Amino acid sequence: MEKLEGNAIVGQSGGPTSAINATLSGVIRGVASCKAIKKLYGMRNGIEGFLQSDIIDLFYLLDNEEELCLLESTPSSALGSCRKKLPSIIEDASLYERIFQILKDCNIRYFFYIGGNDSMDTVSKLSEYSKKCGYEIRIIGIPKTIDNDLVITDHTPGYGSASKYIATAVKEIARDTAAYLCKSVTIVEIMGRDSGWLTAAASLPKYFGDECADLIYLPEVIFSDEEFISSLNNALLKKPNVVVAVSEGIRYPNRRYVGESLQNGRIDSFGHKYLSGAAKKLECLVKEKIGCKSRSLELSLMQRCSSHIASQTDIIESIAIGKYAVECAEKGISGKMVIFKRKDTKDYQIEMSCADASKIANQVKFVPLNYINSQGNNITEECMKYVAPLIQGERSIKYENGIPVHFKIKQ
Amino acid sequence: MEKLEGNAIVGQSGGPTSAINATLSGVIRGVASCKAIKKLYGMRNGIEGFLQSDIIDLFYLLDNEEELCLLESTPSSALGSCRKKLPSIIEDASLYERIFQILKDCNIRYFFYIGGNDSMDTVSKLSEYSKKCGYEIRIIGIPKTIDNDLVITDHTPGYGSASKYIATAVKEIARDTAAYLCKSVTIVEIMGRDSGWLTAAASLPKYFGDECADLIYLPEVIFSDEEFISSLNNALLKKPNVVVAVSEGIRYPNRRYVGESLQNGRIDSFGHKYLSGAAKKLECLVKEKIGCKSRSLELSLMQRCSSHIASQTDIIESIAIGKYAVECAEKGISGKMVIFKRKDTKDYQIEMSCADASKIANQVKFVPLNYINSQGNNITEECMKYVAPLIQGERSIKYENGIPVHFKIKQ
Repeated sequence: MEKLEGNAIVGQSGGPTSAINATLSGVIRGVASCKAIKKLYGMRNGIEGFLQSDIIDLFYLLDNEEELCLLESTPSSALGSCRKKLPSIIEDASLYERIFQILKDCNIRYFFYIGGNDSMDTVSKLSEYSKKCGYEIRIIGIPKTIDNDLVITDHTPGYGSASKYIATAVKEIARDTAAYLCKSVTIVEIMGRDSGWLTAAASLPKYFGDECADLIYLPEVIFSDEEFISSLNNALLKKPNVVVAVSEGIRYPNRRYVGESLQNGRIDSFGHKYLSGAAKKLECLVKEKIGCKSRSLELSLMQRCSSHIASQTDIIESIAIGKYAVECAEKGISGKMVIFKRKDTKDYQIEMSCADASKIANQVKFVPLNYINSQGNNITEECMKYVAPLIQGERSIKYENGIPVHFKIKQ
Repeated sequence: MEKLEGNAIVGQSGGPTSAINATLSGVIRGVASCKAIKKLYGMRNGIEGFLQSDIIDLFYLLDNEEELCLLESTPSSALGSCRKKLPSIIEDASLYERIFQILKDCNIRYFFYIGGNDSMDTVSKLSEYSKKCGYEIRIIGIPKTIDNDLVITDHTPGYGSASKYIATAVKEIARDTAAYLCKSVTIVEIMGRDSGWLTAAASLPKYFGDECADLIYLPEVIFSDEEFISSLNNALLKKPNVVVAVSEGIRYPNRRYVGESLQNGRIDSFGHKYLSGAAKKLECLVKEKIGCKSRSLELSLMQRCSSHIASQTDIIESIAIGKYAVECAEKGISGKMVIFKRKDTKDYQIEMSCADASKIANQVKFVPLNYINSQGNNITEECMKYVAPLIQGERSIKYENGIPVHFKIKQ
């Protein structure tokens, strides 16, 4: 593959995580050691800002070790994010013309897009258009999502840190609820519209012999009020304070969300329903059917932005995959998403590779059946073995005045 | 004061915190260096367990530095807790006879009770009865509450750690919400039925020039929907993503809780109404009146049990006040609660003292008016200066397998 000289741009898209800035740092580190790339731009708010030519120079970060370290421990998207879904090329060719005009104007030959499922759709479409219009550019998608629901890759950057937070928070909550003698049920709602990867992490402390959620309900298993109450009653025979973890997306046999009765039914720009209230609904059900103290809570945004307790493994891998994306582009790869492969070794080891972005876009990786117990109310040891390596290690966080310090981008 | 030889007992009561076990450790450390005390017992689940003679020997912990360190970083009440309010002596003299029979049977001459407002009521009543029945015992209350609403003491153990968590979480949430261009309002609900001390901590990052809550609503200020929407509209003119922190106990001019319409109105055993839903209510109001994206979340139990991010200052002070309680008892003091006094020095310094438990029980310390801005929608620099020293310093937390390790008591 011949050397392609020009500039690069990087953007972040989709829901923020505790690791997406580590991947941004990885891209910056990769660009710093790539001779073909002359300048590095950042798009503000993903493709949405790019369309407004909202582009900034990231050159000042290239050799700034102190700032890069801070960036790697900062939650959310330092460049800003968006949830824009591009129309198909047939639907709106002028939009693609505009995008490629900006690319040409800035002589951008390397395009790195960090995001989830929907962002890979963007990578796929832009890559397709580049071939059509004959503009030579290397477009690489880099995975990011706490949901861990991207296919092909072993796991996604961001998932490990969210899981470490969830495992820790649920362990602390289980300690908290165990303080009282009176019977109680505490229901913790965890993100996950279609897949239960995050909720599965609530069971991790048990793997190491600690308090954690006693029952786990994932969207992969059809939810039944009767089974839930029956399992709860059994659990309450063994201990007075039971903790339950449920995914926001658990559904009844008729496919209606458990939380649907308590939500306003609005739909986001990707056609996803806004969910909330599965735990609240079940809290009411427990009060009605069991009559004991019942409480619900949501880990909400904290599960995706608690970078003060990020997984060191996750952050190191997130940096590595960002760097790897630049190496792939340098080699001439385009239209691909970089992925993790777990090696078949006794101790956890990964290697990196590439897969077609078009094969990843609009797909969902579900928790496989052998990761869920036969009653459908917990996960198996196999699942815990899969998740456990991803939460290992702690970051050394910089605090000032008692509060973590975050990176701020120069405007 | 003559030396009183005998055994000691310690109990924990009320809502768990991240620091109540540090105080327990302080009591154990104090007893270890008190020659008059022969044995140290722990009551399980406070006075409720005590009444069932559910008492365990804590002797094995006396010189166990490793276990004590772990205890100091473990959330919730290691001995278990209760919310039992003792009847008056006139109402049920037989109950007091039973308590003092157990005390005599075990030759307990030192009684340490770690708790909040309602626990000081227990200390006060037991102390009164001891004088009546002529049983020589020294009863000391040790403050504990994340709410910081005890009178006389400068602040309460547990408040600093909860505040550090709140300041950190709100900063991370503010980063998260700032990722998008589209207008949004995020409302964070924080514990605090009558006083706004915890909610005030949401403004701390601003004191150090960082992102944080833009508007703060405390129960000390009568809430008005109109003022709220008007302040929000002003805030949205300056930035697209506004974060609001509200206390669970904010009320309308008619004294009804803002969240009351969304709760079930149940009352706990102290006559407190169960609150929830102030933020949810306001989320709906924003959708209706402003029409932008609006989201609510509750920091819920995490604010009282996130010991992985405890304040080192809080933990050190909590240990110190536990030790100090033993020293006071050794000197013959009884019926008192140990308190913190802030010295009038440039740098933050405290000293410890005692106050009548009866003067603390059933009182509430509100956030003073000079700590709240004139519009009633934020706190003043004076307030931040008061809170800031309490969140300083980080604990070195022991992790195993990626999750914090907690202390477990031998049954």
